[in-house]
Amino acid sequence: MEIHSAAAPHLDVRAHAERRRRLAASLPCPALFFAGTAPPRNYPANTYAFRATSHFLYFVGKAIEGAVLAVLPDGRSFVLRPRPADDDALWHGPGLDDAALAKRLGCEVRSLDGLASLLDPRGACTLPAIDARTRAAQSALLGRAIDGGALEGHDATLADAVIALRLHHDADALRELRLAADATARAHLAGMKATHPGLREWHVRAAMIAAMAHEDCGVSYEPIVTVHGEILHNHRSDHALAPHDLLLADVGAETPGGWAGDVTRTWPVSGRFTPSQRALYEVVLAAQARAIEKVRPGVRYRDVHLAASLAIAEGLHALGILRGASPESLVHEGAHALFFPHGVGHLLGLDVHDMEDLGDRAGYAPGRTRSTQFGLAYLRLDRDLAPGMAVTIEPGYYRVPAILADASLAPLVARFVDRDVLARFADVRGIRIEDDVLVTAESAEVLTRAIPKSIGEVESAVQAGQ
Amino acid sequence: MEIHSAAAPHLDVRAHAERRRRLAASLPCPALFFAGTAPPRNYPANTYAFRATSHFLYFVGKAIEGAVLAVLPDGRSFVLRPRPADDDALWHGPGLDDAALAKRLGCEVRSLDGLASLLDPRGACTLPAIDARTRAAQSALLGRAIDGGALEGHDATLADAVIALRLHHDADALRELRLAADATARAHLAGMKATHPGLREWHVRAAMIAAMAHEDCGVSYEPIVTVHGEILHNHRSDHALAPHDLLLADVGAETPGGWAGDVTRTWPVSGRFTPSQRALYEVVLAAQARAIEKVRPGVRYRDVHLAASLAIAEGLHALGILRGASPESLVHEGAHALFFPHGVGHLLGLDVHDMEDLGDRAGYAPGRTRSTQFGLAYLRLDRDLAPGMAVTIEPGYYRVPAILADASLAPLVARFVDRDVLARFADVRGIRIEDDVLVTAESAEVLTRAIPKSIGEVESAVQAGQ
Repeated sequence: MEIHSAAAPHLDVRAHAERRRRLAASLPCPALFFAGTAPPRNYPANTYAFRATSHFLYFVGKAIEGAVLAVLPDGRSFVLRPRPADDDALWHGPGLDDAALAKRLGCEVRSLDGLASLLDPRGACTLPAIDARTRAAQSALLGRAIDGGALEGHDATLADAVIALRLHHDADALRELRLAADATARAHLAGMKATHPGLREWHVRAAMIAAMAHEDCGVSYEPIVTVHGEILHNHRSDHALAPHDLLLADVGAETPGGWAGDVTRTWPVSGRFTPSQRALYEVVLAAQARAIEKVRPGVRYRDVHLAASLAIAEGLHALGILRGASPESLVHEGAHALFFPHGVGHLLGLDVHDMEDLGDRAGYAPGRTRSTQFGLAYLRLDRDLAPGMAVTIEPGYYRVPAILADASLAPLVARFVDRDVLARFADVRGIRIEDDVLVTAESAEVLTRAIPKSIGEVESAVQAGQ
Repeated sequence: MEIHSAAAPHLDVRAHAERRRRLAASLPCPALFFAGTAPPRNYPANTYAFRATSHFLYFVGKAIEGAVLAVLPDGRSFVLRPRPADDDALWHGPGLDDAALAKRLGCEVRSLDGLASLLDPRGACTLPAIDARTRAAQSALLGRAIDGGALEGHDATLADAVIALRLHHDADALRELRLAADATARAHLAGMKATHPGLREWHVRAAMIAAMAHEDCGVSYEPIVTVHGEILHNHRSDHALAPHDLLLADVGAETPGGWAGDVTRTWPVSGRFTPSQRALYEVVLAAQARAIEKVRPGVRYRDVHLAASLAIAEGLHALGILRGASPESLVHEGAHALFFPHGVGHLLGLDVHDMEDLGDRAGYAPGRTRSTQFGLAYLRLDRDLAPGMAVTIEPGYYRVPAILADASLAPLVARFVDRDVLARFADVRGIRIEDDVLVTAESAEVLTRAIPKSIGEVESAVQAGQ
């Protein structure tokens, strides 16, 4: 039928079958993965763009609204779909029938009505969806409360089995991550080129989103494109670009298959860093290089974070912004976190914070929990690195008014920050440099290395558009 | 504080205060409007872009996540906000304090904790949110089940009072609708210009979205940009553009204030309509003109739909695709709906189908209900038009395989469709022409008239990019 002549996104049937097979081998009971449905935006028929749950995408490879994947301990798998409404073909086109979809997925396809003939859903395990409506559907089908609380019993076993698979990216996952990295690279190049004094942040944001859309990619998170980089999660984009501003762009692509890129670059609106901007940019760049050098199998990720923290402390100590006996002592006291208050990165995969729907279960190795220290408390990952893991490395420097004025941090600020020196760097509000890094057999590979990063590269890229 | 130096979107404080005042005058009890929260996309911290509920936006003018607007029968109003988390200023910036926000909104601002000191929420009325999580918050605050079922008691009274206001756009609403229309016009011009054989649908879609983003506008619904216009709600955009294809683009902007544009144009990928495409395009264009001529105060919207239907029947009868005693008899039998199966339009405002969160309560005048006839059953609006209403006018022609093969429609098809003639128009799968129309004191104004529409205008606009 002509409707299917379109270029369907790549789907490696064998890779997904292998993932299901490996999962089945460690299952205590049948597992049900819910794809979810598109949440309504302002009325039921006007929804956000549908994005299937990542666990469903990982094992099926295609977003199918309302579908459930059943993986049985005996190795069989089924994709179960809700019956279409009578007028579905009118509004949404013919779609693939069960046989055609089964061929495309490499997995038997049935109607969701027929689930009970395959297994007793009351004996199945599942992972709670984030979306309340999908959780209600899970509760109804499994006949028990699925409430997003702590995982127990077979659900917990399932979560650990899924994490064990998704932590280490297979060849097909890597293909997707490289695709996401490439589209993300195009976005950042387009953003640098689109930057001109007098425009508003949204102009650059639009150019970056369009560059990814031109590769058939969406965004893996709401882009941050701002001259107020000191606001870590700033989703407003309406400031004007002044010539002496630095523009921070934290933008990542999502492939048609759902995989994420996540990159931050910071560039001067004028195409030229000022001396103060240049000095702090070099501090962050050196910290990132130090952290990336550290990435290799067997290294604890918290030590990567601490390596970046030490480099930031060294840089700020050398510039005189932080004062103290030594950079090591500054890190020991947590003074670096006054300017680098977040973690150096996180897992990357189908989710930009991979598997964060499971809380810290994926990011923290068993027995490890989050620190309560300011700064370290925001570290989203503390595992020993292993081949096939993908992580971000994203140190930063921020002059955050809320931190420098915080009563509980006042002693730290008074003791370690030289406000007179800091004032000389007033044209730097926020710098972050972030890349996506794959842990390889012996060291690491930067997936997003094509994106301008050194001062010379960044200035050239911005100037090329001016 | 520097963070607030950005160009904040226009907010007419007096217009919003007047809306609240008018609402208060017809309230049976205090009314609570919930702004809602951003739904999570794949894990809690990664949400879709927040879009406040339209009722909240209508009376407040600014999206404030988690906030509640209280309007009291005595005329007082309060915006109540959840208390920020301790580290909110770190991640999201300082934000406006209550006094500064109150000044910006022209309405007292308090913490949501303080609601009980203003009114007893168990005696308040509300409108059920579409989002399940927000409905749960409503239920908890009001102490009763808010389940999205039929509206009763004071909630129903509130709905009718809100509908009475929102049906007739005031000057500030019109300013927003014109802004949306202008950004939508830029999108369609950009789309026509970006069209080249060999590209994929998503290239054009990206260009259209970027053009709106350049005006700081998002999308009021997921854009449809497709060479398969016969699929009415086609959100895939991965087909290649062949030279003889028609490309149908149903794309509308959403202003920063949340107001919607909604326009469809259909243009030839090559920049030249074929004779068969031209013939059917003229049929749809004539039907749209006939329907727009009909729009004026006092006219029943169903009669606008029937005028378009008759024009479609006349055109297809003249071409020989439909055969029968007369175009009037074809409409009487519903034969036109085989090729024009949807309604001619709907209300337009803050929602692209305005107030459809209330079901047919806004679209259908009291005492009127949806027809069960094929075609008419999809008509979303059946009110008598009045000054200040905005509607879309969007007739179309579609060759839908699911309709022409439908068993229940087979007698109609056999009796009225000349398949031999239809085959001569095989290069037309779907054409829709849609504009946004304001009912004025004596007739109507097309808000989106700047967008190329005649065959000559459309061909020129596409050719300009080639």
